[in-house]
Amino acid sequence: MQNLNSAFQQLTEHMSETALLVSIESLLGWDERTMLPPAAGEYRAEQITYMAGMMHQHRTDPRLGEWLNTLVAEKLDPHSDEGATVRELKRQYDRRVKLPQSLVEELARTSVLGQQAWVTARAKNDFASFKPLLEKTFKLKREAAEALGYEETRYDALLDDYEPRGRTSQISKVLADLREKLVPLVAAIGASGRKPNIDILTRQYAVVEQEQFAKHVAAQCGFDFQRGRLDVTAHPFCSNNGPHDTRITTRYDERHFPGAFFGVLHEAGHGIYDQGLRSECYGLPPGEAVSLGIHESQSRMWENFVGRSRPFWQHFYGEAQRRFSPALADVPLADFYWAINVVRPSLIRVEADEATYNLHVLIRFELEQSLVADDLKCGDLPGAWSEKYRHYLGIVPPNDAEGVLQDIHWSAGLVGYFPTYSLGNLYAAQFFEQADRDLGGLDAKFSKGEFEPLRNWLHEHIHRPGQCYTADELIQRVTGKPLSHVPLMNYLKRKYGALYGL
Amino acid sequence: MQNLNSAFQQLTEHMSETALLVSIESLLGWDERTMLPPAAGEYRAEQITYMAGMMHQHRTDPRLGEWLNTLVAEKLDPHSDEGATVRELKRQYDRRVKLPQSLVEELARTSVLGQQAWVTARAKNDFASFKPLLEKTFKLKREAAEALGYEETRYDALLDDYEPRGRTSQISKVLADLREKLVPLVAAIGASGRKPNIDILTRQYAVVEQEQFAKHVAAQCGFDFQRGRLDVTAHPFCSNNGPHDTRITTRYDERHFPGAFFGVLHEAGHGIYDQGLRSECYGLPPGEAVSLGIHESQSRMWENFVGRSRPFWQHFYGEAQRRFSPALADVPLADFYWAINVVRPSLIRVEADEATYNLHVLIRFELEQSLVADDLKCGDLPGAWSEKYRHYLGIVPPNDAEGVLQDIHWSAGLVGYFPTYSLGNLYAAQFFEQADRDLGGLDAKFSKGEFEPLRNWLHEHIHRPGQCYTADELIQRVTGKPLSHVPLMNYLKRKYGALYGL
Repeated sequence: MQNLNSAFQQLTEHMSETALLVSIESLLGWDERTMLPPAAGEYRAEQITYMAGMMHQHRTDPRLGEWLNTLVAEKLDPHSDEGATVRELKRQYDRRVKLPQSLVEELARTSVLGQQAWVTARAKNDFASFKPLLEKTFKLKREAAEALGYEETRYDALLDDYEPRGRTSQISKVLADLREKLVPLVAAIGASGRKPNIDILTRQYAVVEQEQFAKHVAAQCGFDFQRGRLDVTAHPFCSNNGPHDTRITTRYDERHFPGAFFGVLHEAGHGIYDQGLRSECYGLPPGEAVSLGIHESQSRMWENFVGRSRPFWQHFYGEAQRRFSPALADVPLADFYWAINVVRPSLIRVEADEATYNLHVLIRFELEQSLVADDLKCGDLPGAWSEKYRHYLGIVPPNDAEGVLQDIHWSAGLVGYFPTYSLGNLYAAQFFEQADRDLGGLDAKFSKGEFEPLRNWLHEHIHRPGQCYTADELIQRVTGKPLSHVPLMNYLKRKYGALYGL
Repeated sequence: MQNLNSAFQQLTEHMSETALLVSIESLLGWDERTMLPPAAGEYRAEQITYMAGMMHQHRTDPRLGEWLNTLVAEKLDPHSDEGATVRELKRQYDRRVKLPQSLVEELARTSVLGQQAWVTARAKNDFASFKPLLEKTFKLKREAAEALGYEETRYDALLDDYEPRGRTSQISKVLADLREKLVPLVAAIGASGRKPNIDILTRQYAVVEQEQFAKHVAAQCGFDFQRGRLDVTAHPFCSNNGPHDTRITTRYDERHFPGAFFGVLHEAGHGIYDQGLRSECYGLPPGEAVSLGIHESQSRMWENFVGRSRPFWQHFYGEAQRRFSPALADVPLADFYWAINVVRPSLIRVEADEATYNLHVLIRFELEQSLVADDLKCGDLPGAWSEKYRHYLGIVPPNDAEGVLQDIHWSAGLVGYFPTYSLGNLYAAQFFEQADRDLGGLDAKFSKGEFEPLRNWLHEHIHRPGQCYTADELIQRVTGKPLSHVPLMNYLKRKYGALYGL
């Protein structure tokens, strides 16, 4: 027991140092994407590479392996804070020691330079200038996957970074179930003949008002600006830079209301999760998010299940009309509600509606599997992209900026990340259904501006346990069932059935 | 020679790693003072403490001592890049190994917590809440000074951090010479009976216009926004976070034009120095500023010798009138020029005129010498502060916020820093006199908006040599004379003689 306590104490002290490095590296990344002067990009890549190298050294320190072996032998309750700490750190350690330091540093450097090249390539609609870094990224990712090893498919090794314990085969199965039900729904909507007036959303919406309104609503939902902030960036994200430092970002377009507004709600959803983690466990698995799929369930819940619901706007629409006059002055709530819930095939994932969104994800999921398998060459990517869009959505991007260059992910080395977006929608629907049941109906609460009950429910059931449960365990524990496409399809059918008269 | 090359290469590689740590720590500090969410301060202190500890380890690495000893034996030209590198690093190394790691970390932590306490204390005019951290700071600083050692006085050991090789006795001498001439000049101005109309400076100046105008002027003077940025903070500063990442800050008051405008020019002057250093030597002495006195000479030059000159405003006043209408619409250039050059005793150092400014510095210089000597207790500081203001300037602050709490320096552990402000004025006058002579008169150039000749002269003579010359060597080399109060007094007498009819 003495040894055990000593090993655990040394482990947690080591991990708090690691957390300092991780949080600093995170701040460097946030700054790079929000504040960094244009000419400073190359040196920032060196800074991030150096920090990534130090993080890797810390995380693969042989002493860490020894402490973990001592503790694993104790067979702690895997759902206790101590047991989950040992279980998850052991798992991460065993993975990380397989990666050479040089590869980790090269991936970090390529990720920063790749993002910088992507920003330029996207602005200039110039895929060719970006292709070399993209090729390098996938080459390094394939190397990483081979070093990590896998049981079924190379892609699994990469997926695990974002969705621990996730399997490509399982995710493909649940997404196939979803697609089978979704495609007829989207077709029925298209055939319904009904259409909202979406021109009202591209009237004049002053950026200053957009920012103030979005901050107000995010705060009402529970994002704590004493422990966070909101800034402008090219590709919005949420960044956790410390136990009380959660930063969200957006981009404004004065002729497009939904972009920034729902973007902020989305990132605020991520932020509310991060802020709901136990700060006293910061840097240890019980103080960390379960997986990106679970993380995305929180962002999509606030963005869509809450923020695109009718009762939400029953509460906020009066204020929106006051702020955005004359744009919304003559628009009835029902018209506005329908406009923000329009369903139609589109080119840009982050602006896609709730129904077609998962088809955008599916395209990326399939393409990156081919790239990782080396069945598809980067040079053939724009063509393959167009082909998939034609097949799944019936439209083709007019250029690469609105096609393959629209997402930051691959440029940043985030390969295996995309499917977590659809997992997030599925988890969100299943959690939300349960919360609605547990709390005796959320609609009435939202229409009165009461978001605290949902937030507290999420804190209790999802945020505060951290990684004491795996994603599979958590969904089973909270909803009594494994993950399924049924809650999401029920939600979509109910919502769009009413709007489109199906 | 093989050994020599190898030692030099290892040295520079080691120092580029150190520079990564230093630049990251600098960014953490910049972020803390511009962006950090209120609740995140405590963890930021931990992050900075950790980085400071790592920096100290790097800078006191025994291998560094060995490489330096090998290289010192070679007796390189002390003014060559290699020779200056060895000379300055050896000097820094020998100092730093005297400081225990624990003291370095404690100073770093206390500095961050002290700044946070200062922000609150200043806002609430509450010296008592700040006193414990101030006492701790001076206690740690006395410990550091004793560990470092000194020949004449304990204060010398601290001064050396900011003005390498500076001596309290020498600085006291030149400041006494200055004071002897300055006090009669200020008295003559007060007795002249003439007064500008300074109310025009507290009319309505929209913050957005202030920001745009200040950025425009800073860019004209030569601050490169591709390699830097401008943000808002409580106590303005300039932060160098990498070879191409120089960030300046200011604070705006829509009822006070000079505060932000000359503040930006001041920080831009620092920034132009940092941006003028050779980026290929980043992290090594030839790529670093000589001393804070020399650094301050650059900020005061652009703020005052350029920015408060009549020809400067002959060029910019038309634009200022257009931007700040109606505030300046009815104000002739001559009235504006006099208003921004008013001389009168005042309470706030950073808003003081060029003549009385050095008396503000003298007060702080004397007080901190007493605090370091332990002849003055922190509890007696507010009283001593008032007494000095009564003595030197004939006025007494009505509260501590406008008195002893006005400056961030002591809260941030910057003890021994203040005299570099007056050194900066003295250096600036002497350099400016020389530049004016070398370039055949600067007034005609400024009035046409030509600032490039001065900037290039500064780059060539002051910025690009980095630390290849010490401060004493540099002033002698550039102006042919040692530092003296004469150029500054000549400048002040000429300028104010004309304005006040002396």
